[in-house]
Amino acid sequence: MRTSRLEAFSDGVLAIIITIMVLELRAPHGPTLAALSDSARDFLTYLLSFVYIGIYWNNHHHMFHIVEHVSGLVLWANLHLLFWLSLFPFTTSWLDTYGLALTPTVVYGLNLLLAGTAYFLLQHAIFRTEGADSRLRRALGNDLKGKLSPVLYLLGSGLAFVSTWLAMGLYTVVAVIWLVPDRRVERFIAEQERDRA
Amino acid sequence: MRTSRLEAFSDGVLAIIITIMVLELRAPHGPTLAALSDSARDFLTYLLSFVYIGIYWNNHHHMFHIVEHVSGLVLWANLHLLFWLSLFPFTTSWLDTYGLALTPTVVYGLNLLLAGTAYFLLQHAIFRTEGADSRLRRALGNDLKGKLSPVLYLLGSGLAFVSTWLAMGLYTVVAVIWLVPDRRVERFIAEQERDRA
Amino acid sequence: MRTSRLEAFSDGVLAIIITIMVLELRAPHGPTLAALSDSARDFLTYLLSFVYIGIYWNNHHHMFHIVEHVSGLVLWANLHLLFWLSLFPFTTSWLDTYGLALTPTVVYGLNLLLAGTAYFLLQHAIFRTEGADSRLRRALGNDLKGKLSPVLYLLGSGLAFVSTWLAMGLYTVVAVIWLVPDRRVERFIAEQERDRA
Amino acid sequence: MRTSRLEAFSDGVLAIIITIMVLELRAPHGPTLAALSDSARDFLTYLLSFVYIGIYWNNHHHMFHIVEHVSGLVLWANLHLLFWLSLFPFTTSWLDTYGLALTPTVVYGLNLLLAGTAYFLLQHAIFRTEGADSRLRRALGNDLKGKLSPVLYLLGSGLAFVSTWLAMGLYTVVAVIWLVPDRRVERFIAEQERDRA
Repeated sequence: MRTSRLEAFSDGVLAIIITIMVLELRAPHGPTLAALSDSARDFLTYLLSFVYIGIYWNNHHHMFHIVEHVSGLVLWANLHLLFWLSLFPFTTSWLDTYGLALTPTVVYGLNLLLAGTAYFLLQHAIFRTEGADSRLRRALGNDLKGKLSPVLYLLGSGLAFVSTWLAMGLYTVVAVIWLVPDRRVERFIAEQERDRA
Repeated sequence: MRTSRLEAFSDGVLAIIITIMVLELRAPHGPTLAALSDSARDFLTYLLSFVYIGIYWNNHHHMFHIVEHVSGLVLWANLHLLFWLSLFPFTTSWLDTYGLALTPTVVYGLNLLLAGTAYFLLQHAIFRTEGADSRLRRALGNDLKGKLSPVLYLLGSGLAFVSTWLAMGLYTVVAVIWLVPDRRVERFIAEQERDRA
Repeated sequence: MRTSRLEAFSDGVLAIIITIMVLELRAPHGPTLAALSDSARDFLTYLLSFVYIGIYWNNHHHMFHIVEHVSGLVLWANLHLLFWLSLFPFTTSWLDTYGLALTPTVVYGLNLLLAGTAYFLLQHAIFRTEGADSRLRRALGNDLKGKLSPVLYLLGSGLAFVSTWLAMGLYTVVAVIWLVPDRRVERFIAEQERDRA
Repeated sequence: MRTSRLEAFSDGVLAIIITIMVLELRAPHGPTLAALSDSARDFLTYLLSFVYIGIYWNNHHHMFHIVEHVSGLVLWANLHLLFWLSLFPFTTSWLDTYGLALTPTVVYGLNLLLAGTAYFLLQHAIFRTEGADSRLRRALGNDLKGKLSPVLYLLGSGLAFVSTWLAMGLYTVVAVIWLVPDRRVERFIAEQERDRA
């Protein structure tokens, strides 16, 4: 089976997740700048979650650009990823309601960790489907960022016991690391085209 | 008419159903693990409904992979299926609000039954459109899982009178049966390609 | 410009409208059949609005099947249609909150009328873009249903002053008239293909 | 990389933004015309935001019609635009809750300004990706409307200190200026086709 409908469905789900989070951003409690600045923290967590979903969409986009066929296993690995991503509105909203309290901050980090793990499993489901000569595996190389991120999420969850702002800071650092689009896939495509020519 | 827009619209509706259910998952009533664990049951019903919508998307995806043309009848049979699926956020939310009480558990089972029936009717609308030599009919074979599921949903609804947890357990068992992607369609496509070669 | 992105965007908006209406269906006020039956009227208005959006999607689908190019005018005529359709969740919710009271019932009828009018204007925007030899104009013929519906919506809005149930009944009758998929377009396509052969 | 998935994802996000705003339109506080007319202002702000999102979709549609390849930079510039657009439901809702109070009116204008700026940056990201001979740059020409709009948004935000209705009026004027679809792109495409012939 081709990847087109998997991509369309994932695009739909990610577009909805990234957008409905704004429904959790309630209007400030008054028509003043002071009331708006009370919403500043909610706004920042919204921004962070928006960027994370954006990163996942971006990498998902790149990844399926070089994948040609999907199996049932890949479909489910993809749904598994979407499941953890779909919890972002929930964990972000909890974080906002209790002002970066300890438990919600740790749970947010675990959500990041579980989504990262699901992405890793999706890659491996594709490797298995593509067999020994997987194009994706060659494109990804040693996948340093993919291996480093879970460690940083765990470290962030741990740091929350010291300061929840420190934890959020570390989650933000990981986002910034990923913000730089993954050149590996673009480079791989460019190389393939050079080889063909 | 070709199937592309029917697939795009269904993907959209299913993507929204699967995602807006998370809006019903309210943030826990406090910033503690105890409060989070109070949400555990809601989380599990969310997961079950997520998996069911995922299964329908998966099978819908497989089914329309081998269907080539749609008629007005198929369009309406598809909308009929989407209607029952669109009620999942409603029945799931009712289930959560009253903690697996008897009536909501039975109604959830009936929702599963009606969605299953609508899927069955959709298949038959396709058979009729495709005529005597329906490719889908040949691919599906005797459709044991499709025939068994309604019986299990009814059994589950009945079991709810004994224990609603038993009922939810049986609904989960049906989901697990379907989680295994439908190899029939994949096998059919593989065979067709072999025949062509 | 081709129609593909207009169709994709419209599919997205219609898919969301049809699905978010279920968010207005609040869980019944208790875990009993009696509470559920209190939701029966809400359920019926949801069903009616679902069917109407389904009809619009269906006809939109058929219409753009034979349209090949769009202009800026058509894009805006299409957005104008989507605007009135996007108000269905609002008018349906008002209808539910006050149990088919007079004003909400009349306003619901006006919403149907305005959406119908917008559809009519969209058709004419396409006629103008396609010029004298418009394929759509030939396919639609005298468009009896399109001309009859506004009259029936107005009649329904008027009947609401006698009985709001009568009004809802008439709105339902119009839906049933349209439920039968528009064979004109299918016939037109079939004829075109015959002519080509 | 081709633009198809960027377009699909953007269509999804814009379709959701334009539609979920209706969820903020609460049912009037009674079943009467008087209650409905209390919602008139909410309705007008909904309409204005709907038109703005429609304009962005329209121009986005036109823009990517002549763009052929996207880079990582363009993906992020696009997400940046979607981020500011995703705040429309939030700023519109704030505006409604406090009846065109000063601060929300200014902030609404700033949201328009930030979205306009993000659109401008997206254009420049495309220019850079396309290089010296950018087709989009040639199609856009001197981009008078694009340069005028930010000035008008700022002017509107300033006017809010005199009268918030004046400010809303000016925001509406900018919308009307943009409502006229951008002929530049259509003309460019027509010219290109003439050149080819």
